Amino acid sequence: MHHLFPASQVTVDDFELAGKGVFRALTIREKYMKTSIQRFPRTVTQYLRDIDGSIWKEQDEVYPVFTSPVKKDEDPFRMDNLPADLGYKLQIKDGVIYVYSDDDALAKDKARDLNYPDFHVFIDDMNFLITLISQGPVKTYAHRRLKFLSSKYKVHEMLNELEELKELKNNPHRDFYNCRKIDTHIHAAACMNQKHLLRFIKKSYRVNADRVVYNAKGKQLTLKQVFEGLNLHPYDLTVDSLDVHAGRQTFQRFDKFNAKYNPVGASELRDLYLKSENFIDGEYFATIIKEVGSDLEDAKYQYAEPRLSIYGRSLDEWNKLAYWFNKNRVYSPNMKFMIQVPRIYDIFRAQKFVPHFGKMLENIFLPVFEATVNPNANKELSVFLRHRGMNTFLFRPHCGEAGAITHLLAAFMTADNISHGLNLKKSPVLQYLYFLAKIPIAMSPLSNNSLFLEYAKNPLLDFHEKGLVISLSTDDPMQFHYTKEPLMEEYAIAAQVFKLSTCDMCEIARSSVLQSGLSHEEKVHYLGTDYQLEGPQGNDIRKTNVAQIRMAYRYETWCYELSLILQALKTAE
Amino acid sequence: MHHLFPASQVTVDDFELAGKGVFRALTIREKYMKTSIQRFPRTVTQYLRDIDGSIWKEQDEVYPVFTSPVKKDEDPFRMDNLPADLGYKLQIKDGVIYVYSDDDALAKDKARDLNYPDFHVFIDDMNFLITLISQGPVKTYAHRRLKFLSSKYKVHEMLNELEELKELKNNPHRDFYNCRKIDTHIHAAACMNQKHLLRFIKKSYRVNADRVVYNAKGKQLTLKQVFEGLNLHPYDLTVDSLDVHAGRQTFQRFDKFNAKYNPVGASELRDLYLKSENFIDGEYFATIIKEVGSDLEDAKYQYAEPRLSIYGRSLDEWNKLAYWFNKNRVYSPNMKFMIQVPRIYDIFRAQKFVPHFGKMLENIFLPVFEATVNPNANKELSVFLRHRGMNTFLFRPHCGEAGAITHLLAAFMTADNISHGLNLKKSPVLQYLYFLAKIPIAMSPLSNNSLFLEYAKNPLLDFHEKGLVISLSTDDPMQFHYTKEPLMEEYAIAAQVFKLSTCDMCEIARSSVLQSGLSHEEKVHYLGTDYQLEGPQGNDIRKTNVAQIRMAYRYETWCYELSLILQALKTAE
Repeated sequence: MHHLFPASQVTVDDFELAGKGVFRALTIREKYMKTSIQRFPRTVTQYLRDIDGSIWKEQDEVYPVFTSPVKKDEDPFRMDNLPADLGYKLQIKDGVIYVYSDDDALAKDKARDLNYPDFHVFIDDMNFLITLISQGPVKTYAHRRLKFLSSKYKVHEMLNELEELKELKNNPHRDFYNCRKIDTHIHAAACMNQKHLLRFIKKSYRVNADRVVYNAKGKQLTLKQVFEGLNLHPYDLTVDSLDVHAGRQTFQRFDKFNAKYNPVGASELRDLYLKSENFIDGEYFATIIKEVGSDLEDAKYQYAEPRLSIYGRSLDEWNKLAYWFNKNRVYSPNMKFMIQVPRIYDIFRAQKFVPHFGKMLENIFLPVFEATVNPNANKELSVFLRHRGMNTFLFRPHCGEAGAITHLLAAFMTADNISHGLNLKKSPVLQYLYFLAKIPIAMSPLSNNSLFLEYAKNPLLDFHEKGLVISLSTDDPMQFHYTKEPLMEEYAIAAQVFKLSTCDMCEIARSSVLQSGLSHEEKVHYLGTDYQLEGPQGNDIRKTNVAQIRMAYRYETWCYELSLILQALKTAE
Repeated sequence: MHHLFPASQVTVDDFELAGKGVFRALTIREKYMKTSIQRFPRTVTQYLRDIDGSIWKEQDEVYPVFTSPVKKDEDPFRMDNLPADLGYKLQIKDGVIYVYSDDDALAKDKARDLNYPDFHVFIDDMNFLITLISQGPVKTYAHRRLKFLSSKYKVHEMLNELEELKELKNNPHRDFYNCRKIDTHIHAAACMNQKHLLRFIKKSYRVNADRVVYNAKGKQLTLKQVFEGLNLHPYDLTVDSLDVHAGRQTFQRFDKFNAKYNPVGASELRDLYLKSENFIDGEYFATIIKEVGSDLEDAKYQYAEPRLSIYGRSLDEWNKLAYWFNKNRVYSPNMKFMIQVPRIYDIFRAQKFVPHFGKMLENIFLPVFEATVNPNANKELSVFLRHRGMNTFLFRPHCGEAGAITHLLAAFMTADNISHGLNLKKSPVLQYLYFLAKIPIAMSPLSNNSLFLEYAKNPLLDFHEKGLVISLSTDDPMQFHYTKEPLMEEYAIAAQVFKLSTCDMCEIARSSVLQSGLSHEEKVHYLGTDYQLEGPQGNDIRKTNVAQIRMAYRYETWCYELSLILQALKTAE
């Protein structure tokens, strides 16, 4: 006969098994987050410490460094104040960069001990998690806990909805419109909406059609000649002929979707308008991005973190991108730039662009180490890196939009936060772990609606109710949105379809600021001085317009789930 | 044994019965549309004529008169060019206004014969329709035809979607963004979004808090005093405390929804900001409306038809409204004003505001007749009426949003077009009749989503696929919308949730222009010179961006359904 453990409605044996597994999973994430200077909730660390005296003490707490915003009257592109040469030498072996104190140490191959994770331990940890997420009892436990969280939230809502609303009504001067919201997942090459791109193309032609803008196999072409070659006149161009919007044809067809990056189906126009490297040094692309930034500044309460690409095909990509960035002075106080690395090693390898994966890692990472060690020898790149809003790196991959579930598992080990997360639907254990570890998820239901999942089936509301940390993001306004304010469109549609309350929307907006790479100063300004504290004490309703009742509910619910693990492990003893 | 009629999959007897019923229903609508100078499709008249030689000849074709737009440099409020006195005398008896040639005719009670419908015939017609829509065989027939229309459209879509898209891509300079779209159903008192109203209130206070704006039981109050009386300061006001937005609390609760018209729950603020009659002669209300108009002008391709109220409580309402309108110069080239009459006779009667329904009819209609007969004796009202965009009246009621199905039946007899139409879901016969008669329906799925029907369950897409004529409208941006462009928000959300194609959206936009009270000149400008022709020949793709393939499909499908009636009646012979 099995004993049922009342709180979780599973047998004692299963409860112990699940508790132990979840405990170890959390310690794994904690380890990788702390070693990579990414974020891990203080509350979880405390619970883990209570359970078996975690190796992480309070003084081990790390917090990523985010670059402070540019001061008024300061030139965001000044190059005369870069730090001095640290004198370190670098060498890459098997995809790992080793740092040496000086040439002598390099010659003797005596690298500094920088405490990077051991490959075999990492694989062990990963294998443990792979086993865990498919263990029957753990699946049942996670499934039941999630179901419980969902029902509990509905009860909370029924009991407290009006009280939450009352708190917000009594909160002076702050409402959803003047809460800060960050577009946490947006690709720079699609950060303008289709109408904006169309207008920009028309204007560029009106202003100077005779400008030489393109180099076609050695022949220099004016803008006029480029369009003549395509057999069209910008005056006649429409959003229909531009054809960058995702339609019904793109659903479940990522190949077709990628072709939408080519205006009028012409890669020439993509090169000319949406690339940083071309005959005009990416001037058009930079100008459009700055226009988007300027729109955000006008809207005042909206920010974006546009993603620029480093492909890892050659070592000079970083410098080229930095050169484009600095030359065109791509700056807006309402934007923080991120780097994305498209996962196309298979193509590079097949086409012999790179000899092996290690070379790709070198191309991606070595220039950043070099610029860090000696900024003045890498001025362009150093100035560019200063703008990315994070001096230390956060790993914020696309994850769980499509593809294997193991991607979400690897991200659980390595990512500060993720974009999409749809596939958490398919793994109760991972979903529960993302809940427990409060891993932020930037969701883009409009993007999903065009590509992978119909709007009404999006798990956004379900995740939100259970207490997973979600933000709303646009992904690609060029392909998905209709209005001039894509992020507001995203919020408005979610509010309408999912019937979100003001408190819901403000909670999501608050999460977007926390998830973002905005600086400590900005977060203090937008969320309140104690924003790093978890639970209601970290919330300043005057800044966030999130009801304290909601914050308390979230925190108590979270702590209760964490305490169950403690209980399970005590039962096991 | 019953014979099955192949095209309709019903027995011959049922087919005959349904055909006859539908035929008579259409002749009933035709009669009332023609006598009230409202619109009825030429194509249907031709079919009816083919069947039994309709009493309506080609020369009987009527078309409502829509006032031409104000010319450049012309004062929209000039009063010196009103037509001369026609000299007619008026008298109302039993709710019907009689017109007399002169005093002599009035004394002798010899009214002019103005061919108004006979009450008893009207009741007979209505009873016929009431019976028709509940007849089993007719219901089956209509249900099957509608199902067929739905499936046929899906086949059309699968076969022709890409061809339609190709047509649009090859259509120069025109896309969804620069197609004209009219907000065909919007209440003036809620035509601004919540954020706009909030900003306006704050600004009015900043500009002049010491202005005397309110009369509270004989005591004159400044703006400052009004807010002090409410114990709040405009600076602290937020959209939450303003509390005009419909939330989850309003679903299925029209009573709660109506309270949302009171900012901060205070009827004082409704009086002050959203009423035309108050201590400041409705200046604030007029200014907000003009700001909305100005936003539409900036957007260029959007228009609205705001509805202003005449309650029928007293005879001077029209003059007061006209005075407000003219004094505050409420004009925008992108707006046409409509009059709405709230259906609250029961309240007026219970509170003894009016002695009987006839008095209410007198209050509503007599002033309009008087101003028409002698404009110079009713200058304010005559100038105001000139602005409503229609010299003859179109009846465009809310209908089928909630309540009894018979309301949709009465509107089938009397309305040029309707708003909402949700309940057509519940009556296949009426739905089929609305399809056959191509009665435009202004749908507001976001409004419904907050009040009566969840977005995903809205019949908009279903109606559109079957070929009912629909437009998109906002109803109450103040309560339902989030963004600065409520009409675009409405289109964007419909496009996303229902996965509308560009052709779908442009077809809906085209229908909105046709449905609207815009003048002939404007319709020619926005839709093309032949817009009054039905079918593809009435469509100018260069103006509307609607594919001719779509137009041809719609017209052929419609004609086929009409021809079935002819077939049924021939079978009957």
